[in-house]
Amino acid sequence: MENSLVEKYVFGVDIGGTTVKIGLLDMDGHKIEVWEIPTRTEDGGSKVLPDIAESIRKKMEERGIKDSQVVGVGAGAPGPFDENGVIFKAVNLGWNEFNMKDELHDLVKMPVKCGNDANVAALGEYWMGGGQGYKDMLMVTLGTGVGGGIIHNGKIFNGATGAGGEIGHIHLVDDEPLQCGCGNYGCLEQYASATGAVLLMNRVLESSDEECVLRGKDFVCKDIFDAAKNGDKLANEAIKQYGDCLGKGLAIIASTINPEIIVFGGGVSKAGDILFDLVRPSFEKYVFHGAKRTKFALAKLGNDAGIFGAAKLVLDSVSK
Amino acid sequence: MENSLVEKYVFGVDIGGTTVKIGLLDMDGHKIEVWEIPTRTEDGGSKVLPDIAESIRKKMEERGIKDSQVVGVGAGAPGPFDENGVIFKAVNLGWNEFNMKDELHDLVKMPVKCGNDANVAALGEYWMGGGQGYKDMLMVTLGTGVGGGIIHNGKIFNGATGAGGEIGHIHLVDDEPLQCGCGNYGCLEQYASATGAVLLMNRVLESSDEECVLRGKDFVCKDIFDAAKNGDKLANEAIKQYGDCLGKGLAIIASTINPEIIVFGGGVSKAGDILFDLVRPSFEKYVFHGAKRTKFALAKLGNDAGIFGAAKLVLDSVSK
Repeated sequence: MENSLVEKYVFGVDIGGTTVKIGLLDMDGHKIEVWEIPTRTEDGGSKVLPDIAESIRKKMEERGIKDSQVVGVGAGAPGPFDENGVIFKAVNLGWNEFNMKDELHDLVKMPVKCGNDANVAALGEYWMGGGQGYKDMLMVTLGTGVGGGIIHNGKIFNGATGAGGEIGHIHLVDDEPLQCGCGNYGCLEQYASATGAVLLMNRVLESSDEECVLRGKDFVCKDIFDAAKNGDKLANEAIKQYGDCLGKGLAIIASTINPEIIVFGGGVSKAGDILFDLVRPSFEKYVFHGAKRTKFALAKLGNDAGIFGAAKLVLDSVSK
Repeated sequence: MENSLVEKYVFGVDIGGTTVKIGLLDMDGHKIEVWEIPTRTEDGGSKVLPDIAESIRKKMEERGIKDSQVVGVGAGAPGPFDENGVIFKAVNLGWNEFNMKDELHDLVKMPVKCGNDANVAALGEYWMGGGQGYKDMLMVTLGTGVGGGIIHNGKIFNGATGAGGEIGHIHLVDDEPLQCGCGNYGCLEQYASATGAVLLMNRVLESSDEECVLRGKDFVCKDIFDAAKNGDKLANEAIKQYGDCLGKGLAIIASTINPEIIVFGGGVSKAGDILFDLVRPSFEKYVFHGAKRTKFALAKLGNDAGIFGAAKLVLDSVSK
């Protein structure tokens, strides 16, 4: 391919509940253009894929790109997939089970590969982000929830029914009275998400009479980390608990799959290296000695991880 | 190969601290002969591999098998391996870090492949045992300790430094005062091994004044399961706790790697289906819904799993 005189391209698509992000990349993974279209979830989400196909076609016309120059279209969506491209359910998009790969292929008439959005984002970080240079990677995404993706030998580890890497829902705490969104009690996500940090902070406030800049206020996760950086004692206690929970959860996972590196993404990871200072002691306390040297890194691609990973997904499938 | 008129063979070697088990198999995985030689651990275990090579050579002479008829020699040993066949340490054998694959190859002059004994046993159960027909499998071995192995897409999931599938040392209980052999506190192995069952039984006895056939006696794991089957109340309480711990640990692992099937091996698995009755409620309580349908099965190969897996390891490597 490198010898060809004609430039080749790949499209990476990241389907979210509100917008679809589409990226046009060259074969070396350079972003040429990234744009967004709204996700039309009405009518059971039946317009989502046709809208994507139309947008890609329009972009190709605009830029004078021929079909033969496009290696394929990769796409990530928020649901569990099997290996044939069947998505089982995507509540946010109004979708029930169907073969997304076949349907998108029928629309774009080019090679298509699909995968779970969290796994696809992990693949993006492996290819072009915080996990570059490592074959075995765990990605943990600390946002409203806790998402994850496992990369094994440079490929997505999907699991039997697409739940591989769903690390937000490993059981962590026995006596949790609040129910997790998944229906269980005491999941990692209940403590290690941005929402979880707020829960921990509120519990610290309830259990103490000491002063705290956050007391009586409406606050979000970032406010807790900011207060802690400014020396607030209770905020520091809350983020310590946050790090303890996350470190313990990651230690359990690392003891099972022994990755070379854990890449931290999502909103909470914007706290930066302080996150590692919080997580590392607990991680090292609980991890099996054979996995103690697991490296930590921050994600680098932000919201673009999905389009990079989607592009890589289809590149890998056609280069076989 | 199937078309060849000359019969082909493969050797599977399972190196333990006391004996080395060697199997001669045909290409379809039929056992032709299995024998044992002592493991001579003196002199830093330097005689172990030469002894194996000599025994294999002798067997080939005995049976008139030519070098060209042997596809290769696979071997499992109790230590972590990298992908090049380097074993980092094997305390039981007196070994420090060296390339076991290269050294055994120099001795037998045939293709060689090596791996961790627990992972290799898992591969054996995948190929010819309880995991037959499934691509993604978790093997859990319930013996003196708790071992494990992950099979992903029909291959051993080794992890970055060979600690993949070391599930006995995932953290399970926060306030455990006793230290695990690995140095940590509250590992799965401390409760879900045969030794762990005895610990749980002793704790039940200490916390109660009720009668129990095991009170005041020296007992092993099997005695607890037998007493429970005979209706002993406290023994039933202990094995319920045993199942709760094991179910919770397996739920955490299944939520991470989403296997199709979990295969139970080791001495405790001889309890049979009652084990599943004990483990299933806790497993279903704690597992992520996407992994709830994980199947359970008993291992079928017993102590032969290692030689089958070792044979499969080298068969896979030469068929690439």
